[in-house]
Amino acid sequence: MRTPVTPVQVERHVGDGVSTADDLLVTEEPLEIRLGHGPEAHRREVRLSVTMRTPGHDPELALGFLFTEGIIADPAQVLRTAYCEDVKAEELGNVVRVELHPAVAVDPARWQRNFYTTSSCGVCGKSSIEAVHAQCTRALGQRPALDPAVVLGLPERMRAAQTVFRHTGGIHAAALFTEAGEPLLLREDVGRHNAVDKVVGAMLGAGLPADRTLLLVSGRAGFELVQKCVVAGIPAMAAVGAPSSLAVQVARASGLLLIGFLRGDRYNVYAGG
Amino acid sequence: MRTPVTPVQVERHVGDGVSTADDLLVTEEPLEIRLGHGPEAHRREVRLSVTMRTPGHDPELALGFLFTEGIIADPAQVLRTAYCEDVKAEELGNVVRVELHPAVAVDPARWQRNFYTTSSCGVCGKSSIEAVHAQCTRALGQRPALDPAVVLGLPERMRAAQTVFRHTGGIHAAALFTEAGEPLLLREDVGRHNAVDKVVGAMLGAGLPADRTLLLVSGRAGFELVQKCVVAGIPAMAAVGAPSSLAVQVARASGLLLIGFLRGDRYNVYAGG
Repeated sequence: MRTPVTPVQVERHVGDGVSTADDLLVTEEPLEIRLGHGPEAHRREVRLSVTMRTPGHDPELALGFLFTEGIIADPAQVLRTAYCEDVKAEELGNVVRVELHPAVAVDPARWQRNFYTTSSCGVCGKSSIEAVHAQCTRALGQRPALDPAVVLGLPERMRAAQTVFRHTGGIHAAALFTEAGEPLLLREDVGRHNAVDKVVGAMLGAGLPADRTLLLVSGRAGFELVQKCVVAGIPAMAAVGAPSSLAVQVARASGLLLIGFLRGDRYNVYAGG
Repeated sequence: MRTPVTPVQVERHVGDGVSTADDLLVTEEPLEIRLGHGPEAHRREVRLSVTMRTPGHDPELALGFLFTEGIIADPAQVLRTAYCEDVKAEELGNVVRVELHPAVAVDPARWQRNFYTTSSCGVCGKSSIEAVHAQCTRALGQRPALDPAVVLGLPERMRAAQTVFRHTGGIHAAALFTEAGEPLLLREDVGRHNAVDKVVGAMLGAGLPADRTLLLVSGRAGFELVQKCVVAGIPAMAAVGAPSSLAVQVARASGLLLIGFLRGDRYNVYAGG
């Protein structure tokens, strides 16, 4: 069992003084996602990706990643997800295999092209937004009716539930809330995109509807996170930090409610207000 | 000319009150990097990657990316870098072409495999560190002799020079300092890895030696940033936030001085102390 925190000895400098201290770091290790696909008689395996992540909730991470990256269109296309046993001892727990339904057609060459090149429609903000919409297989859920007092209380509720952050001070989080501000899901990860994929994977796995929910992220709201939120059908997103220009553009083009700089007694609504 | 900030109108909520306000966002747009390679008579072009970045210093970003990702082993392998003119109007300024020396052999299939799969040596921390070392073509520069008072003053010196942050509150930065705490280079970007690649590209382009320098990053120190620092030969790195377990492991295995939680009157030394 791999753990989300790793003990380490450090030199602690305060002013001119130095001492040795025990510290806890957030664990970062590679996760390989493999796909089993094709008809029973000609089953194949492809190594889809390697991401640096914090161990824990890896099957959810894999499911969320496949969905938000457009590799599967429906969680029902996945038969099962499990850690691979046929790996070296030092890799145990770092390799996950996702078994796709035999009817799902996959084209590994297409994913490789999609990463390294752009679609034929261009390299600009407009084409990036079109690519998100082309990938959406579900509409956004019904928008939550949010009371400002509820919104202002969300960061403290997330922080209170962040166990790894409390020990390390160095991990991102994403949390799904009801419109009343009740936390439904919270996941932590060294990578903010992984934290979002873990929440989305858990949501899909549990069959939770996205209606009247809001996704809160601990850092900034860049294009990648807003894209994942829109593809997952979550109708509202809030970030403790700033959004980027493209994040606001894709939110406005998608009908997403986007809140940023949610701190203390204030926040900004950048889209869907 | 694309600009690093984008104006936007927002709804500002303070407590129960709402007003409309003008705001500035950090610009995020795709940058495509193309490579021209092969002998003069059979010159080819490959679309290498698309990254979401803040416009500005794009040729430096391309050079730094190619070097820290191990696609070129020496900046002398690049003949020139320029924005492509043969693109649609809305893509102008978002596509950069890097001309490699005809003698440089490239294998696009290898890069694609490297992203989507791992090297044959495994999916674990040890193999990740081995992959970094296999990619290093230069030794780390000579370690800077750092006075604690100089170290403690670095974040404020970087913050004071961050013009885009001052306007938007939402952008990462990386800065290269001398051991006396003098800033040599500072770059801002919506992506922390891009900010580091821009600094590395500028350093390589100017032929600056890495001896006795330190790279400061505004956020956390994850594996990816430490990897880029080591490959660039920069002997010391400091982060305002926390390092990850794998970042500390690769720093210790590489002889990198790694400082984290550099805030107020204190910091921790995680490697190379």
